[in-house]
Amino acid sequence: MEFHFSERMLTLKPSVIREILKSVTPDMIAFAAGNPSTDTFPIEEMGKIAGSLFADEKRIAGILQYGVSEGYQPLRDVCLKRMREKYQTGGDCDELIITSGGQQAIDLLTKAVVDPGDTVIVEGPSFIGSLNTFRTYQANLVSVPMKSDGMDLDALEHALKTEKNVKIIYIISTFQNPSGYSTSLEKRRAILELARRYDVLILEDNPYFELRYEGEYIPNIKSLDTEGRVVYAGSYSKILSAGIRLGYAIGHKDLIAKLVIGKQATDVHTNLFFQVVAAEYMTQYDLDAHIEKARNIYREKRDLMLSCLEAKLPQEVTFSRPQGGLFVWMDLPKGSDGKELAAMTVKQKVSIVPGNCFMVDDAKVNRGVRLNFSMPSKAQIEQGTDILAACVREYLKK
Amino acid sequence: MEFHFSERMLTLKPSVIREILKSVTPDMIAFAAGNPSTDTFPIEEMGKIAGSLFADEKRIAGILQYGVSEGYQPLRDVCLKRMREKYQTGGDCDELIITSGGQQAIDLLTKAVVDPGDTVIVEGPSFIGSLNTFRTYQANLVSVPMKSDGMDLDALEHALKTEKNVKIIYIISTFQNPSGYSTSLEKRRAILELARRYDVLILEDNPYFELRYEGEYIPNIKSLDTEGRVVYAGSYSKILSAGIRLGYAIGHKDLIAKLVIGKQATDVHTNLFFQVVAAEYMTQYDLDAHIEKARNIYREKRDLMLSCLEAKLPQEVTFSRPQGGLFVWMDLPKGSDGKELAAMTVKQKVSIVPGNCFMVDDAKVNRGVRLNFSMPSKAQIEQGTDILAACVREYLKK
Repeated sequence: MEFHFSERMLTLKPSVIREILKSVTPDMIAFAAGNPSTDTFPIEEMGKIAGSLFADEKRIAGILQYGVSEGYQPLRDVCLKRMREKYQTGGDCDELIITSGGQQAIDLLTKAVVDPGDTVIVEGPSFIGSLNTFRTYQANLVSVPMKSDGMDLDALEHALKTEKNVKIIYIISTFQNPSGYSTSLEKRRAILELARRYDVLILEDNPYFELRYEGEYIPNIKSLDTEGRVVYAGSYSKILSAGIRLGYAIGHKDLIAKLVIGKQATDVHTNLFFQVVAAEYMTQYDLDAHIEKARNIYREKRDLMLSCLEAKLPQEVTFSRPQGGLFVWMDLPKGSDGKELAAMTVKQKVSIVPGNCFMVDDAKVNRGVRLNFSMPSKAQIEQGTDILAACVREYLKK
Repeated sequence: MEFHFSERMLTLKPSVIREILKSVTPDMIAFAAGNPSTDTFPIEEMGKIAGSLFADEKRIAGILQYGVSEGYQPLRDVCLKRMREKYQTGGDCDELIITSGGQQAIDLLTKAVVDPGDTVIVEGPSFIGSLNTFRTYQANLVSVPMKSDGMDLDALEHALKTEKNVKIIYIISTFQNPSGYSTSLEKRRAILELARRYDVLILEDNPYFELRYEGEYIPNIKSLDTEGRVVYAGSYSKILSAGIRLGYAIGHKDLIAKLVIGKQATDVHTNLFFQVVAAEYMTQYDLDAHIEKARNIYREKRDLMLSCLEAKLPQEVTFSRPQGGLFVWMDLPKGSDGKELAAMTVKQKVSIVPGNCFMVDDAKVNRGVRLNFSMPSKAQIEQGTDILAACVREYLKK
């Protein structure tokens, strides 16, 4: 039989990155991934907690039963308390919902406020997973160029002025995926002020901010918010484990109430066992100390990646120097096509993601590529950048 | 600030049942729940598997990392193989996607094929969670009366003829939630034929069918499907654990490919750890023997519930006598209102769900109520039906 798909799905393609990753073989060097390093997961501690939960017959029975859509209360409490006290993120009118990964926070907010044709303003480039989420709600996606200190403010205001029914400004505020750039404090304030003036929500997606290897903490946009205009999407994927699918959203209680209803209708609740594991972990162990360890692992990898690129790439190729996160953005000279370079490197067993994937108009040639340094080993970073640089030189000769 | 919600969320209310359950105190008898009994979860075995996974350092690292949206391949394989071999469910053109509970299978199919205003035909009554999912996609919900052997076929054909853009016939084929009724084989064939004639998909939601306490297995509608017209939604919530959020959809590979894209954009993938636990469980242990044990537990509870209702209720009150599943549907005499009865029983510490909750038009008075027998203990069934019957008598006196 012939299938008739909904309009929202007609043009949606699988994530290029996830498709690239499926074709990655063990002998490949994956600069294309966005995965955290499993070396940064507190596996031993999580194993102990898991063991103790299964050893308590009555408790484990409750944990394997249905839970509530809002999330496991002790995890909600400990997570919100930490974000409030340590980062002033979440005010008195705010609530927290546990989501199935940070991605679901994006999905549920979009579901709650975006009608087909409404505008969502995004950074250009932005995270492909979120772009696809917005696309499933048939949003009018409008891209504002990303500079090294955040969105171009003039372009942002122009978009707010001219686009119809702007509902959300979507910002990955710190160590952005894919650029590695962070939005400066000044720009955070300015963007919040613009959002207020044009009565638009800000969705602050901030899964990487605690992975800072140098420089000073920049207050979350949510911490500057006094009126419930910012919804904050957080994630445990980069600090505990990605496979357990744990994230959260912090926002005004009226908004979170809608997200809860949306969640009931999509997956009822997030898997309860790892909500308990995370809550126990944060209670029994020192999450901050653990993150510090992860930082040290990643800092070395970032330093190595940057010094390799510095030493090996021809001068006309530029790249971002992120103070944290997992990604470096590399720009080929004007007129180049990142897709052509990616096709060359993959033949040499190095996968990279071409920049066009991260753009609203992904059919347009883009001279950037995204490089990940968290997943490959140090030896792979050495070897992979050798191959990458050789491919770049060959490409530029053409 | 004032929030502007999307049209899809404007009228959507939280699930009445989940709200009822939140107010349930430990001293209450919950006939309102839909929870499986934790006595039927293979906790010891799952604990052993969990322990062995955490003991294998390399393996657990991979399990805590990101997975693919389709699901953990060994689970997909073992699940599809079992459904094919044991129940002829899933043909050569079919694929399987692992979902975050059966609910997400409903959500993803609706996302893939339903545009706002398209019609979804449901049984009346039907499962409130699915009704709410369809509502989030702004479906035109059309209800076809449920008889003791399935949908009224004349009403179904009338709906197919007269409603615009019918995309899905949604059927909980066996031991339906909330009625407890099963669709007969004859009707399964007839409904499939109607779906073919009017070129509509069937979504067969079948989480309870293996919990049969008497009578003969009725072949799944999917097993009668030769052209990919039926999408089958399955669940591990009732046979392994509800809190782990594991379900699946089996359907034509072109459809499943769209569900995968939809899943990428909503939660990336289902928590990997319990996908591995389930796959290991099904490989190392005898799932069929385990289900047989669960059946024995539930059969006793159902028998007790039915004999209590038989003995205690006044004759003018009727109720379904399900051959399996978790629910009994009770009808008060014509003109009664299940909501009024529910308000009375809850004051006596017995929670039940009024029938109107399960109807497309939930504002209309409904004389039914749903009773669950899987969650309460036998003593609670005895005591709860005493209270229920007393309330019924009092209500009928008014």
